[in-house]
Amino acid sequence: DEEADAPLYPEVSDSMEPDQVALLLESLPREARAECWAQVPVEQRVDVLVEMRTEARASLLRDFDSQALDQLISDLDAETLIELAESLPEDVVDIALARMDERQREHYERSAQYDENAIGRYVDHQLLILPQNSRVRDAVRLLRRETPLFTQHLWLVDRTGRYAGAVETRALFGQPDHLPLIELEEDEFEPLQATRSLREATEAFEHAEVSALPVVDDSGRLLGRMTQTLALELLHEHYEGQLMASAGLDEEEDLFAPVMRSSRRRATWLGINLLTAFLASWAIGLFEGTLQEVVALAVLMPVVASMGGIAGSQTLTLIIRGLALGQISAANIMPLLRKELSVGGLNGVLWALVIGFVAAYWFSSPGIGLVIALAIVVNIAVAALSGVMVPVLLEKLKIDPALSGSVILTTVTDVVGFVVFLGLGSLFLT
Amino acid sequence: DEEADAPLYPEVSDSMEPDQVALLLESLPREARAECWAQVPVEQRVDVLVEMRTEARASLLRDFDSQALDQLISDLDAETLIELAESLPEDVVDIALARMDERQREHYERSAQYDENAIGRYVDHQLLILPQNSRVRDAVRLLRRETPLFTQHLWLVDRTGRYAGAVETRALFGQPDHLPLIELEEDEFEPLQATRSLREATEAFEHAEVSALPVVDDSGRLLGRMTQTLALELLHEHYEGQLMASAGLDEEEDLFAPVMRSSRRRATWLGINLLTAFLASWAIGLFEGTLQEVVALAVLMPVVASMGGIAGSQTLTLIIRGLALGQISAANIMPLLRKELSVGGLNGVLWALVIGFVAAYWFSSPGIGLVIALAIVVNIAVAALSGVMVPVLLEKLKIDPALSGSVILTTVTDVVGFVVFLGLGSLFLT
Repeated sequence: DEEADAPLYPEVSDSMEPDQVALLLESLPREARAECWAQVPVEQRVDVLVEMRTEARASLLRDFDSQALDQLISDLDAETLIELAESLPEDVVDIALARMDERQREHYERSAQYDENAIGRYVDHQLLILPQNSRVRDAVRLLRRETPLFTQHLWLVDRTGRYAGAVETRALFGQPDHLPLIELEEDEFEPLQATRSLREATEAFEHAEVSALPVVDDSGRLLGRMTQTLALELLHEHYEGQLMASAGLDEEEDLFAPVMRSSRRRATWLGINLLTAFLASWAIGLFEGTLQEVVALAVLMPVVASMGGIAGSQTLTLIIRGLALGQISAANIMPLLRKELSVGGLNGVLWALVIGFVAAYWFSSPGIGLVIALAIVVNIAVAALSGVMVPVLLEKLKIDPALSGSVILTTVTDVVGFVVFLGLGSLFLT
Repeated sequence: DEEADAPLYPEVSDSMEPDQVALLLESLPREARAECWAQVPVEQRVDVLVEMRTEARASLLRDFDSQALDQLISDLDAETLIELAESLPEDVVDIALARMDERQREHYERSAQYDENAIGRYVDHQLLILPQNSRVRDAVRLLRRETPLFTQHLWLVDRTGRYAGAVETRALFGQPDHLPLIELEEDEFEPLQATRSLREATEAFEHAEVSALPVVDDSGRLLGRMTQTLALELLHEHYEGQLMASAGLDEEEDLFAPVMRSSRRRATWLGINLLTAFLASWAIGLFEGTLQEVVALAVLMPVVASMGGIAGSQTLTLIIRGLALGQISAANIMPLLRKELSVGGLNGVLWALVIGFVAAYWFSSPGIGLVIALAIVVNIAVAALSGVMVPVLLEKLKIDPALSGSVILTTVTDVVGFVVFLGLGSLFLT
């Protein structure tokens, strides 16, 4: 007896890590999430919620009754509450704080001072700290007692809690018990400033050959540490965010966001793009008479616009990468522009010839071929120019070129392309 | 006396790390690179070359005379030669190999068996290995002698060199000298398979809470290790590659590639896009008569195409992210399609009304308004459908949707948009 049922959703299994369960939950339509959530082992639930994207997490938490919420917050540490706080009602956060031990609450309050894009918010507190006048025996005693992950270093602090240095655990092997730790201290160790951005923190890890870095506040006080695993996660989120932003979407966007909310959000981006499309239409509208006389021009418009758009986005992408890597400055902008204009010139001439011949043949009109060929050359050159200048100017204005560069560039190449093409058409063909 | 000279290029300073020097060199026009290279301290040169992107590195190496090459390869280890080999003439690689000690040469030959996308190629060999029957005292003796970075674990092997387990260095503190290491062994430690892809390796590090993982070959033999720092670098390169690929560019593309080479490479992508643009032109060409009669249709064409393209790329981006995260399967594809169609339907109707009224007013023709409104509704619905189906089908065909998804989608929305809009126009307006 074959069943023609819809395929069942995948289920939570014991061998799954919290982040895998989180991905699974996010992949389910909202009706199915609650059912799946019930299968998640109780002891894993907090970790799973922490791993979920904000929107999907909120969709689950909304169905929690007060008893479930109470259970959830019964034993949270500072880092977990920081992650969950924005998805919880304020009074629930207060209850969670009231139940924490004093030290965790202090950690929470210090982290909560930093905004969402600052390292200070995400420090962890599983680090081994010793007074700076400790000796090897103190360190070994501490290491036998506590064993947080990624303990490549012990951190030394002065009497006011200010960061004073790092000692590698492996340096302790074979050292006499009474040796002051300060003599094993490593130099060249830059602690991270808590106010620096997450992106800067991941960069620091690409240089630093350590698995965790100390994080200090403005006065040099040791707040906690940041691990390389977190850096990996943040880098992932950063690029995912960029990818989503380039389509006007939010990184936290839920695959199964409610239709109304999704529609409302996407409408904004559609509206912005509509304005640019109307600008292109307005440019075309300037040549209504010409179009009526030479309808072939209307047929060929997408070719002119598309070639400019593609050539421009190639230059734009190269420049956006260069800006992100810090490789573009006043010193090399002119040679770069010259090179891109040369590349544009060569490709402009090449494709102008191809397109010119095709168009001339298609419409049995050498004039059409000539007009489109000229328009292609001009538009690809303008594309190269804007591909360099648009992102550089946006960066100057502190607007992320990865977000809006492409819309602006396409508007330029569309409008210029249509005006040049139809303008030349009305000069030579009417 | 003010000088109006062009700004000087930035210079190499002593405090720069090799990767910063590499970025600086890449940011210079080719003529200026050789000059800057001369400032790089001799002892840093190999590291800088390793950090550079292939193309920019090749531009430097091409100017090396045989003496400089000879000096460069005088003392390479296996990992460095693996990185540089593709940029060096074959006979130079052979000389470098001949000069290596036997152990490094063996490492090189084992790594070189793996292709560019396999973990095995990039393992490092700075790991501490002990026979599986060793005792705590052996481990401590080894740790006192050698100190590679990221030594969170010691690795145990059997007599044939097969991976047999991991012991955390911190677990050694306070243990009796004669204790067999095997008793301190950690479970739940999956070594990485050398044949797995780089992307899979970075994923493993997002789960594993360790700073380095052992890498084994098919027979379980310990080849070397991979560090979390490498994972961070690889993730960075992966996303940079995706960004570049979406504009038809190569990740290794040099900011100052020679004009001819750059033009040739970009021409391919322009050619592919030209074909899709001609397809759109052909669709418009089917309605030449209509366009001649109602020139307003030609003016409004970009609006229909743009709205479809933007709505489609929003859905496409969401689905591409879902596919990359492994969140999309046969189980949720139908609910997802329903949701995206509903979002598309809502936004379609909303913007159809706006655009319809604007068009009707602009051309003083309710007919035009009605025709474009209907075309917008249809095109945004088709965009939602293709936004889901195009990447899913590409993934099935093992084609990366991040690379070609957008071209295909825009072709669909352009052609459908023009045909529906002009088709309705010829039905109702002529």
